Amino acid sequence: MPQSSGSKALTITSLVVRLLTLIFLLASLIVIATDSATMKIDFTEVKIRLKNVYSYRYMVSVAVIGLAYTFLQIPFAVHYACTGKRLGAHDGLLKFEFFGDKVISYLLATGVGAAFGATFDLKKNLEIRSKLDDFFNLAYVSAGLLLLGFLCSGVSSIISSLALSK
Amino acid sequence: MPQSSGSKALTITSLVVRLLTLIFLLASLIVIATDSATMKIDFTEVKIRLKNVYSYRYMVSVAVIGLAYTFLQIPFAVHYACTGKRLGAHDGLLKFEFFGDKVISYLLATGVGAAFGATFDLKKNLEIRSKLDDFFNLAYVSAGLLLLGFLCSGVSSIISSLALSK
Repeated sequence: MPQSSGSKALTITSLVVRLLTLIFLLASLIVIATDSATMKIDFTEVKIRLKNVYSYRYMVSVAVIGLAYTFLQIPFAVHYACTGKRLGAHDGLLKFEFFGDKVISYLLATGVGAAFGATFDLKKNLEIRSKLDDFFNLAYVSAGLLLLGFLCSGVSSIISSLALSK
Repeated sequence: MPQSSGSKALTITSLVVRLLTLIFLLASLIVIATDSATMKIDFTEVKIRLKNVYSYRYMVSVAVIGLAYTFLQIPFAVHYACTGKRLGAHDGLLKFEFFGDKVISYLLATGVGAAFGATFDLKKNLEIRSKLDDFFNLAYVSAGLLLLGFLCSGVSSIISSLALSK
């Protein structure tokens, strides 16, 4: 199948979920990058940032990887939406999209889990948590955006699975 | 396509990854269920169990859901491995497997993220952590087993995507 064609609605959905993934991941990164809290411990000001929480570092890593991959897929999604045909002189590109979508959406899913899991339990268990409430609340916003990005990426994955079957 | 047939290797792989998923999820559940630590705080013995860490509760929930779903799929995988044909008088069953595999493997991925993320950051940040080291180390083992279960489930998901395309 050198070129598979899809219905108009599917081609548009395909592009829209890619763009939404891009937007959500970017927003998630901006929120977590600007998230910080300052505390006074023994007369010293201590700044808590994303680098202090390893789950947030992981979250940023997967969001950046997801962003790069989705950015790469945009031109193909645009071509698909405009012409109704997938670029792919041979099967290679469809297979790259099929496996790429799977890997990226799984990575994002683990990132979502790590961000929510760590935030929830750190917030519950750190004794100084009252001072860190805003920090963790903003982390929730970022994790929520990553979740939306992951869901869009999951839809892309389902579409590319179906595309392989056409 | 009422019945799609696959190569012998694929049908066997399909069954093997289902069984492995089952085993890894069960092992993960057993490890986390038996994981506990006892600490003395102000003359009182305090027992830390999985119920005290919300990420572990979530991990157990997704592992149980994954276990139930995989258990349900075993008879179909056995039939597929024995006859080389998928049960599915109509498309319904193939589609259920297609979407079911996707949802379950995504759920497991978030569980893996939550378990590793929370364990890593709690271990780093709890001041009483030296007393909880064994507790968290065993949680890592459980999270690792869940990761293996998730990977097998991901392979199932890829196989069922390809099955839909046959």
